[in-house]
Amino acid sequence: MIATRADAEALDAADPLGRLRDRFVLPDGVLYLDGNSLGALPATVAGRITDVITHEWGERLIRSWNEAGWWTASRRVADLLAPLLGCSASEVAVADGTSVNLFKLLVAGLRMRRDRSVVVAERFAFPTDVYIAHSVAEMMNVELKLVDGPDELTRVLDERVAVVCLSQVDFRTGALWPAVQTTAAVHDVGALMMWDLCHSTGALDVRLAEWGADLAVGCGYKYLNGGPGAPSYAFVRSEHHSSLRTPLPGWHGHADPFAMSPDYVPAQGIGQLNGGTPPILSLLALEEALRAFDGVSTTDLRAKAASLTSLFTQLVTHHCPGPVVVSPQDADQRGAQISLQFGHAFGLVQALVERGVIGDFRAPDIARFGFAPAYVRHVDVWDAVDVMSQVLDSREYMSDRFTTRSTVT
Amino acid sequence: MIATRADAEALDAADPLGRLRDRFVLPDGVLYLDGNSLGALPATVAGRITDVITHEWGERLIRSWNEAGWWTASRRVADLLAPLLGCSASEVAVADGTSVNLFKLLVAGLRMRRDRSVVVAERFAFPTDVYIAHSVAEMMNVELKLVDGPDELTRVLDERVAVVCLSQVDFRTGALWPAVQTTAAVHDVGALMMWDLCHSTGALDVRLAEWGADLAVGCGYKYLNGGPGAPSYAFVRSEHHSSLRTPLPGWHGHADPFAMSPDYVPAQGIGQLNGGTPPILSLLALEEALRAFDGVSTTDLRAKAASLTSLFTQLVTHHCPGPVVVSPQDADQRGAQISLQFGHAFGLVQALVERGVIGDFRAPDIARFGFAPAYVRHVDVWDAVDVMSQVLDSREYMSDRFTTRSTVT
Repeated sequence: MIATRADAEALDAADPLGRLRDRFVLPDGVLYLDGNSLGALPATVAGRITDVITHEWGERLIRSWNEAGWWTASRRVADLLAPLLGCSASEVAVADGTSVNLFKLLVAGLRMRRDRSVVVAERFAFPTDVYIAHSVAEMMNVELKLVDGPDELTRVLDERVAVVCLSQVDFRTGALWPAVQTTAAVHDVGALMMWDLCHSTGALDVRLAEWGADLAVGCGYKYLNGGPGAPSYAFVRSEHHSSLRTPLPGWHGHADPFAMSPDYVPAQGIGQLNGGTPPILSLLALEEALRAFDGVSTTDLRAKAASLTSLFTQLVTHHCPGPVVVSPQDADQRGAQISLQFGHAFGLVQALVERGVIGDFRAPDIARFGFAPAYVRHVDVWDAVDVMSQVLDSREYMSDRFTTRSTVT
Repeated sequence: MIATRADAEALDAADPLGRLRDRFVLPDGVLYLDGNSLGALPATVAGRITDVITHEWGERLIRSWNEAGWWTASRRVADLLAPLLGCSASEVAVADGTSVNLFKLLVAGLRMRRDRSVVVAERFAFPTDVYIAHSVAEMMNVELKLVDGPDELTRVLDERVAVVCLSQVDFRTGALWPAVQTTAAVHDVGALMMWDLCHSTGALDVRLAEWGADLAVGCGYKYLNGGPGAPSYAFVRSEHHSSLRTPLPGWHGHADPFAMSPDYVPAQGIGQLNGGTPPILSLLALEEALRAFDGVSTTDLRAKAASLTSLFTQLVTHHCPGPVVVSPQDADQRGAQISLQFGHAFGLVQALVERGVIGDFRAPDIARFGFAPAYVRHVDVWDAVDVMSQVLDSREYMSDRFTTRSTVT
């Protein structure tokens, strides 16, 4: 039975996360399926940041570092993130961007396994991960092995491996690594497991403690809705804190920052992953954004992501001849994203954007659609597929005006 | 002749930068002498960021990366910074925080001088600089030599030295390194000169090209007024671009970011110093803030900083028995800052803050006052010293309520 719009409405009526949508501002006439690239605006962020700028910065000036709690903002964000990561807040630092945190944790992981000589990463991870892994391997004088999937991982895992860094969700297809099983296999050879959670947190049931993960990083601007380029977070399992040593020490990560000592004494625990002064406007926007997840269960996020992506897959398969679903058919094996392979993917994405359905394009031939469970409804899915079917029928994706690729789609 | 308030008024009336003050929001009842820690709020920033959040992020969502020019924001900030740095915009990257840029450029500098084995930094630089220098020395397997002043620098300079990293302005005393002469001495042994300009840019006559500087970093939130934790900038002299190799490669620094290639091909020129996705809210606040310097000559900034600090020194010396000026007496040898050494410096700073005169305290016994030439007036200096003289007369700096040190003053 192919779902009708009434079926979609019924799913929304029964959705335990339905109340969350009002916590976001979504423009009229837009079906936003790109929260896996930039999350939507939470309703309270603009007011909060206006107050930060006009009152905290403008009126109170330097005093706000104490008075307004700028100094402790990264800790508060960690408190808000911990339930979404399934770990303790004391295991989470919020600082820098994802690339920088990848660098810090890969180096730190190699330092925890000094006697080992190999780091493993994914060949088709988000490119920055690969670039950083190459750089770390060179600087730490270890070998980088790139793998493409579980079989290859199994082949390279041995007792020379220090750290394995994988993205839980493949940014191209939405395919998931089985977190528990993969972490166990990595531990079997005595290596450390590091997860990139950029496309997971806020949409899936991340359980770092349960998985036994050692290290993790992720960004604040996708399903966490922290705003463009929001700061990143880094997780280090508490049992590794005593051997943690960052390659990017800074005064915010010093045990006694205002001693202004030339001798570096790292703050206890995760604190040393703070380095320099963080970008407060962006950090406080992320803090405010995360309040939208107040009282939300990650199990519900995961279930809704599965439901939305299942509905989309069913409807596209039935109503949209041409594009091929390249994301896993089994909802347990994919994130909150469906990717369609289509020769005219670029034109398709552009034609949809013109009609208010926003997904994105990834070269050479992938149209990606993200289903942020916090604010996307089942009726949005139904309506989006309805528009896609019209775009495909009319062949408007072939239009000359879509032949030039813009830099960001 | 000790200056009167009328003299101060006359200096302001003749100040070519006097018109700039209206470009800033300064709270009533406050004399703000801490722009060397956090710059004041430029008048147009709140409006700009409200629009960025509500319209660009909230309404236009992912489309703003192209439409609103988020993708090119770091280039526009570089364009605005170049005249303040005395270099070409093509030599400036804007990304990450200062600590991270210090790391990138120290590593890059060592890679440009592969045959050399020593990096030189300052023992009493802002602590992060020392921590990062230690970390880089360890990772690059070179020796770190710490110096404290020109004599020691002369002693360590030889042909084993790859990079010398110095802060133009001493953050404790405001003392300046002679930029031209020091750069020349470093070049004489074939080493690279890297300047930390955190306490310079926006207040002094920085001339990186003229000095012959090879590398430089600085922050956006002091005299540049970009807001708390604003992004940092990095300078690499164009002749070094062909041998530039960052240890933190990211997709924003790739020659063709949307190819999403696992192979890193650095963007031409300075572009590779962009790494991951930048914190757009903080970056656009910096961009807007820098517009306040439109049409401003750095020679005028420098001259006004000298005039303000000279007036403060004269008045404090005459009216304020007790505190000792530890900044250089010669205005040519200091930045836009005067530091007073005083046994009760902590209480003094707190008592002044209570009366609306905001400076800051640096352990163990320094009261620092910064004179941002863009918005501090000579009458502010006169009034601030008048208040300080009252505080000293009344001995209120001894009050019990100032015996506990807060974390940020």
